[in-house]
Amino acid sequence: MSYFPQITVIPYEGADSANPFAFKHYDPDAVVAGKTMKEQLRFAAAYWHTLTADLSDPFGAGTAVRGWNRFTGLDLAKARVEAAFELFVKLGVPYFCFHDRDIAPEGSSLRETNRNLDTIVALIKEHMQSTGVKLLWNTANMFTHPRFVHGAGTTSNADVYAYAAAQVKKGLEVGKELSAENYVFWGGREGYETLLNTDMRLELDNLARLYRMADDYAAEIGFNAQFLIEPKPKEPTKHQYDFDAATTIAFLQRYGLQDRFKLNLEANHATLAGHTFEHELRVARLHGMLGSLDANQGDMLLGWDTDEFPTDLYATTLTMYEVLQNGGIGRGGINFDAKVRRASFEPDDLFLAHIAGMDAYAKGLKTAARLIADGVFESAIERRYSSFKEGIGLDIVSDKATLASLEQYAFDHDDIRNVSGRQERLKALLNQYVLAAD
Amino acid sequence: MSYFPQITVIPYEGADSANPFAFKHYDPDAVVAGKTMKEQLRFAAAYWHTLTADLSDPFGAGTAVRGWNRFTGLDLAKARVEAAFELFVKLGVPYFCFHDRDIAPEGSSLRETNRNLDTIVALIKEHMQSTGVKLLWNTANMFTHPRFVHGAGTTSNADVYAYAAAQVKKGLEVGKELSAENYVFWGGREGYETLLNTDMRLELDNLARLYRMADDYAAEIGFNAQFLIEPKPKEPTKHQYDFDAATTIAFLQRYGLQDRFKLNLEANHATLAGHTFEHELRVARLHGMLGSLDANQGDMLLGWDTDEFPTDLYATTLTMYEVLQNGGIGRGGINFDAKVRRASFEPDDLFLAHIAGMDAYAKGLKTAARLIADGVFESAIERRYSSFKEGIGLDIVSDKATLASLEQYAFDHDDIRNVSGRQERLKALLNQYVLAAD
Amino acid sequence: MSYFPQITVIPYEGADSANPFAFKHYDPDAVVAGKTMKEQLRFAAAYWHTLTADLSDPFGAGTAVRGWNRFTGLDLAKARVEAAFELFVKLGVPYFCFHDRDIAPEGSSLRETNRNLDTIVALIKEHMQSTGVKLLWNTANMFTHPRFVHGAGTTSNADVYAYAAAQVKKGLEVGKELSAENYVFWGGREGYETLLNTDMRLELDNLARLYRMADDYAAEIGFNAQFLIEPKPKEPTKHQYDFDAATTIAFLQRYGLQDRFKLNLEANHATLAGHTFEHELRVARLHGMLGSLDANQGDMLLGWDTDEFPTDLYATTLTMYEVLQNGGIGRGGINFDAKVRRASFEPDDLFLAHIAGMDAYAKGLKTAARLIADGVFESAIERRYSSFKEGIGLDIVSDKATLASLEQYAFDHDDIRNVSGRQERLKALLNQYVLAAD
Amino acid sequence: MSYFPQITVIPYEGADSANPFAFKHYDPDAVVAGKTMKEQLRFAAAYWHTLTADLSDPFGAGTAVRGWNRFTGLDLAKARVEAAFELFVKLGVPYFCFHDRDIAPEGSSLRETNRNLDTIVALIKEHMQSTGVKLLWNTANMFTHPRFVHGAGTTSNADVYAYAAAQVKKGLEVGKELSAENYVFWGGREGYETLLNTDMRLELDNLARLYRMADDYAAEIGFNAQFLIEPKPKEPTKHQYDFDAATTIAFLQRYGLQDRFKLNLEANHATLAGHTFEHELRVARLHGMLGSLDANQGDMLLGWDTDEFPTDLYATTLTMYEVLQNGGIGRGGINFDAKVRRASFEPDDLFLAHIAGMDAYAKGLKTAARLIADGVFESAIERRYSSFKEGIGLDIVSDKATLASLEQYAFDHDDIRNVSGRQERLKALLNQYVLAAD
Repeated sequence: MSYFPQITVIPYEGADSANPFAFKHYDPDAVVAGKTMKEQLRFAAAYWHTLTADLSDPFGAGTAVRGWNRFTGLDLAKARVEAAFELFVKLGVPYFCFHDRDIAPEGSSLRETNRNLDTIVALIKEHMQSTGVKLLWNTANMFTHPRFVHGAGTTSNADVYAYAAAQVKKGLEVGKELSAENYVFWGGREGYETLLNTDMRLELDNLARLYRMADDYAAEIGFNAQFLIEPKPKEPTKHQYDFDAATTIAFLQRYGLQDRFKLNLEANHATLAGHTFEHELRVARLHGMLGSLDANQGDMLLGWDTDEFPTDLYATTLTMYEVLQNGGIGRGGINFDAKVRRASFEPDDLFLAHIAGMDAYAKGLKTAARLIADGVFESAIERRYSSFKEGIGLDIVSDKATLASLEQYAFDHDDIRNVSGRQERLKALLNQYVLAAD
Repeated sequence: MSYFPQITVIPYEGADSANPFAFKHYDPDAVVAGKTMKEQLRFAAAYWHTLTADLSDPFGAGTAVRGWNRFTGLDLAKARVEAAFELFVKLGVPYFCFHDRDIAPEGSSLRETNRNLDTIVALIKEHMQSTGVKLLWNTANMFTHPRFVHGAGTTSNADVYAYAAAQVKKGLEVGKELSAENYVFWGGREGYETLLNTDMRLELDNLARLYRMADDYAAEIGFNAQFLIEPKPKEPTKHQYDFDAATTIAFLQRYGLQDRFKLNLEANHATLAGHTFEHELRVARLHGMLGSLDANQGDMLLGWDTDEFPTDLYATTLTMYEVLQNGGIGRGGINFDAKVRRASFEPDDLFLAHIAGMDAYAKGLKTAARLIADGVFESAIERRYSSFKEGIGLDIVSDKATLASLEQYAFDHDDIRNVSGRQERLKALLNQYVLAAD
Repeated sequence: MSYFPQITVIPYEGADSANPFAFKHYDPDAVVAGKTMKEQLRFAAAYWHTLTADLSDPFGAGTAVRGWNRFTGLDLAKARVEAAFELFVKLGVPYFCFHDRDIAPEGSSLRETNRNLDTIVALIKEHMQSTGVKLLWNTANMFTHPRFVHGAGTTSNADVYAYAAAQVKKGLEVGKELSAENYVFWGGREGYETLLNTDMRLELDNLARLYRMADDYAAEIGFNAQFLIEPKPKEPTKHQYDFDAATTIAFLQRYGLQDRFKLNLEANHATLAGHTFEHELRVARLHGMLGSLDANQGDMLLGWDTDEFPTDLYATTLTMYEVLQNGGIGRGGINFDAKVRRASFEPDDLFLAHIAGMDAYAKGLKTAARLIADGVFESAIERRYSSFKEGIGLDIVSDKATLASLEQYAFDHDDIRNVSGRQERLKALLNQYVLAAD
Repeated sequence: MSYFPQITVIPYEGADSANPFAFKHYDPDAVVAGKTMKEQLRFAAAYWHTLTADLSDPFGAGTAVRGWNRFTGLDLAKARVEAAFELFVKLGVPYFCFHDRDIAPEGSSLRETNRNLDTIVALIKEHMQSTGVKLLWNTANMFTHPRFVHGAGTTSNADVYAYAAAQVKKGLEVGKELSAENYVFWGGREGYETLLNTDMRLELDNLARLYRMADDYAAEIGFNAQFLIEPKPKEPTKHQYDFDAATTIAFLQRYGLQDRFKLNLEANHATLAGHTFEHELRVARLHGMLGSLDANQGDMLLGWDTDEFPTDLYATTLTMYEVLQNGGIGRGGINFDAKVRRASFEPDDLFLAHIAGMDAYAKGLKTAARLIADGVFESAIERRYSSFKEGIGLDIVSDKATLASLEQYAFDHDDIRNVSGRQERLKALLNQYVLAAD
């Protein structure tokens, strides 16, 4: 059976098609910057937004019209698997991602919950084998159930901590079973509602303990996934410990975990933290910690995580610019952690939105590759910092200078000339590259 | 002569005085939490806002009516010193802080600039000796002059870097000469305007180099001040590298500087970064890096650094709560990095504003001390995390647990009960303590 | 039976009681500013947050532990009524407010839905009569159900508009039946998600039509309630038409409705729109449109409607200051449109939170009354604008001046002196009044 | 003599030129949507940012390198006029705008100030005649000088009000002398710093009085300019009375001025108020009040008015979409109220930035025209609201419906079906149009 019988997605064949289910820019086999688009972009669909969510919001019930909603319990979970792989294949998305509770419901006990999971994992494995779609990453949902009201790895209740640990253990086993390339930790409740009742030190220590135990267990069972932490500043909590890339790096350094974890960065989380996405990518890149991307976009005039499908070509271009400068996304990928709007509730919208996002990233990749090939920004940067290539500048970067030696130099060179940073010109050049024909 | 002949500040003598220049809460010799208020609070006045600034804003010329403005050049600088110490003494502020360029004007060469500085430093030293007022910290202004348009320690121009280094060297010498207890780095231009023209790696490396050279030179000359970095997320630049406490800690850890620097935290910078001030203090405290405070407050509906005098009693209470939990402010202090509003342009306002701020902090100190003495929040926290004192919780915090042992426990304890976090009750208790009579 | 058998609320009897369920400041019969506190404050409980909501958030399931949740359907609705009036009476809250769907569930048809409503309304009426608790206002929930995904009065679907109209009609009938003192319109979906698909003119015209029809029908059935519109800038939609007080006033003026509607202003909505609550109150007051208050507070560092119980004494003082200057709240009241935190999920928290809020408002009322009695701000204002009481200033406010006459005056009076606005001093005075013993 | 001898701007001749001073999209004589680009866009340069400002910011001195800065006083003012017209002509900008104090310095009395103005106005008039460049609008700067510290039309000091009135009078005379097409009021200080010392009613009444007197005087002297008010929510004040379009409309309606004023809307002011620019344009358009545009863009992560040159093609497209739907910009224009970054301090940057902005708007115009010609959004809107073209929907918009008639309809039509709003698809279409070749 088919859940999307009405939809035929037309692969890339230029910009002429009138079919809205047609790619204009994403040609998976086209080579850009030395690899195929498919290899560069490693797109993934997010199970939670696309298969599980009902498009409710804090003021309204779910609106999503989904063929599989006529089922309940494990039957619903199985129907979602069918629908998921039909969608992945039709879209040509090579990867997917899930939380444990997205794919299978909780049972009346943790043991039963795990059995539910096993049932669905087996079904997913079959579909992965028959379709070739792979698991980019999995994770444990330790934020939805009321038991996590005070946190999971940072809970004030030791029983909850034990439960969370059990859930992570199972998650790692599931990841190994499905050959996940990464395993993600997103701490939706790992933060605080008010400092007035919070022992921040204990909470952070315990969070580090959980990460260490997870790393140990993965080694024990031979699960070689890349481990990723996903920063977010706030929402649902008032303040989350993994506020942004720098905060998460500080945490990892403090607990000696910086070589065992990389970052899964999300565009909308960046802007909620007051950063551009490219800033977060740059920071992670400089630390060798750029692991994977959650692709979406926020509304800059709204103060919550809107998780819109990414369509802003400036953002996708500058994102792919950082990725290419990083030497590619490695074992990570570009996961559409994005949801259709509550008013885009028809099944068609799931396809239209993914196509919009995939095309925007494909165009961004092409533009970024050309910018780099032409050295547009890199040559400007090289000129701009050229004074550090010789003379006193070379002394500085070679660690040969001291305050005293620099003072002597400055006494004789205190009539300083700078040159313009040329920001407006660089933005005009960016526009020209965005608009350039393919 | 006197710059404020009309003003007589009445020391603390209860709430009855009708004189607006009277303290209601700040009694320097009263003992709170084991030390005098003067020792606990270590108030400092900020030279730049109080003596140097003219109250201009981006849309308007300066409005400040100041007696010393009839002078120019070095005479103006000298007059400011006179006015400064008159104000410090009248207010009973035991410390002050300055940037090099606040106290003396630039000359036509770096050498002349340094000579100007020497002249004023000598005058200041005399006044310090005669009044007993001490220097909490000094710093170098490496953001106002056009030469720093692209940064100082993170400039793209090696000549500017050398100039900045010379300025820091002189700053350390001045600090030593005046027995400063701390030396501060605030990187107003240490960030970027656009990533399109920025080599972030080189800039951060160079910034760390400058910090290392400064630390080396201080050791060389025997200047034993505590070194402080002051985070701020943005403004004047689009993005500053010392975004917040966590970001600055990540930087210090990365470059191995975490034992040589502490943080000078500012309330308004915290909120611009999306944090409460108490959050920033808590983060620094947990890392042993709570160095000193820049006391002010922002307008939460405005997106720039308003640097208002602190009057919010909730904020001062929670600030002093963190300070007392830290075992006090140590060698740091509470510096009023605050300016009177542009419309509060009369000399009287300088006094009224400082009195408002000092009283608000004094009241905050008293309230915080009582909250701690009564264990209001601490006892709630102890109860809340009590499950980590025994059984499985003790195993966890003793690092005896593994994912496997926790899973076994969780299988048998998956019917979990939590207890309320009681946030509303804790806030009501806070109100009762704020309102309690002294 | 009792839903809160464990709770005994202690009426106001000073600050000595150790019982957390005791009022410290709210003494309903104490006279402040010429009326009893009960008359001045006219507190109301909000049915939706307190009886109906489950404390879910966008990332988590409901946590609320409520005795009535063992029921379903109409039985649940009836149980809620019992619990509601027990809570109202124990707290001494004289009013309550509800949306139609808070009190009774939808049936399988609109007719059945209305019958459900009739059943519960009859039950509520009995309880109102036996307890004396009154209905401050009711309203229609036209935002939760999926049918309102594109709006109600501003929907793109005429069938939905008709449905909404039917719901408003029934709401007016219910209001009349229960002698509601006000009827509220909050347009949770009356806005847009994207201008790209929006006919703003038609939507606004239709919204005005709905308001007019409602007003006509209320007259027809003799329902004399005060009509109120509640502004909110955004959330759930990207942009709501009733953005803030001024925007709503512009709308009402444009459609000639300004004499038929007043405003129901909410604190957290004000701050989401970039205003202080007192600003919104002042604007409404100047237009004679201050109708009623939704009392709560937001977290100024979070970008969504947190609807916290109001505990900030500055905010409650300045709110009551505007109310008293308005001559009181009239037929409106102070409705706690506030929810306990998701982590405050126990029944006790419902009481603790209301007590915290009621006490904060009672204290605010007392402080505001003293500020006004002493003319603290008013006398400063009178002095500040005194130049408009005579001479050229009197000419101006008497409309006798022209540009030419003022130019003549200015030529002869161009050496202008201003006086300080004294903001810091006024804030210090506010602190003194907040801290003053009752 | 020439102030920009090194610069030759190359008029539009396609995308091939390597000269950075070349237009890629702006071809003044090309016809788009029935008029030449020059007529559609009516570009203006802003005297203050481009000729007068020095690129200082709150933390730094001016950096601008300008040839005319070797002069002072009236000589400087004259040199600026020369430079201005050289720049206007080289760029091909047909209009300019100024505040009175941009073009001529204050003297020691108001009379002398007016004489200074007369001198420069005469010089400007000569240049206008010889070049054909026209004055889009002028205005009075009533915010920079300390006398306006408490406002101009909303000051607490009647002498200041008189001075402001005199300044407006002169401004109208200057506008008439130079045949300005519009006259603008921007109330930089027309707001408040704190409500604690503010008589909002008197201030608003007086502001309306000033507007009325100005309108009367313009009629008296036969100055037929379009009168414009420019909303801004805050900065420099904490809260400005002309917060946004809707607030300003409410004010004009309240004082019966809605037929005498239109709005001058600025992109960065819109976003500071929490709106997209297209929202503000739409609101003004619906009220027939879309007067003129201040073209720039803000940084959505910064909370102040950055006034960047507009380069975002989405923004320029959606702006021109509203303008074209408005039937054009009328007597208004597109004024670059934009400043080069402080780090873009060379004279070249003035040209590069204007070219970037003009090209971005030209491209936006072309894209918007094609979107409208193809009915991309309009056809979607027509379909979406089609239910209001017949049956019950037609009854509603024809004002034939009542709550009772709609209830009857709803009883029989309560099984409602909506259709998707298709936001993601519309954004993908917008991308296709932005990227389409010219």
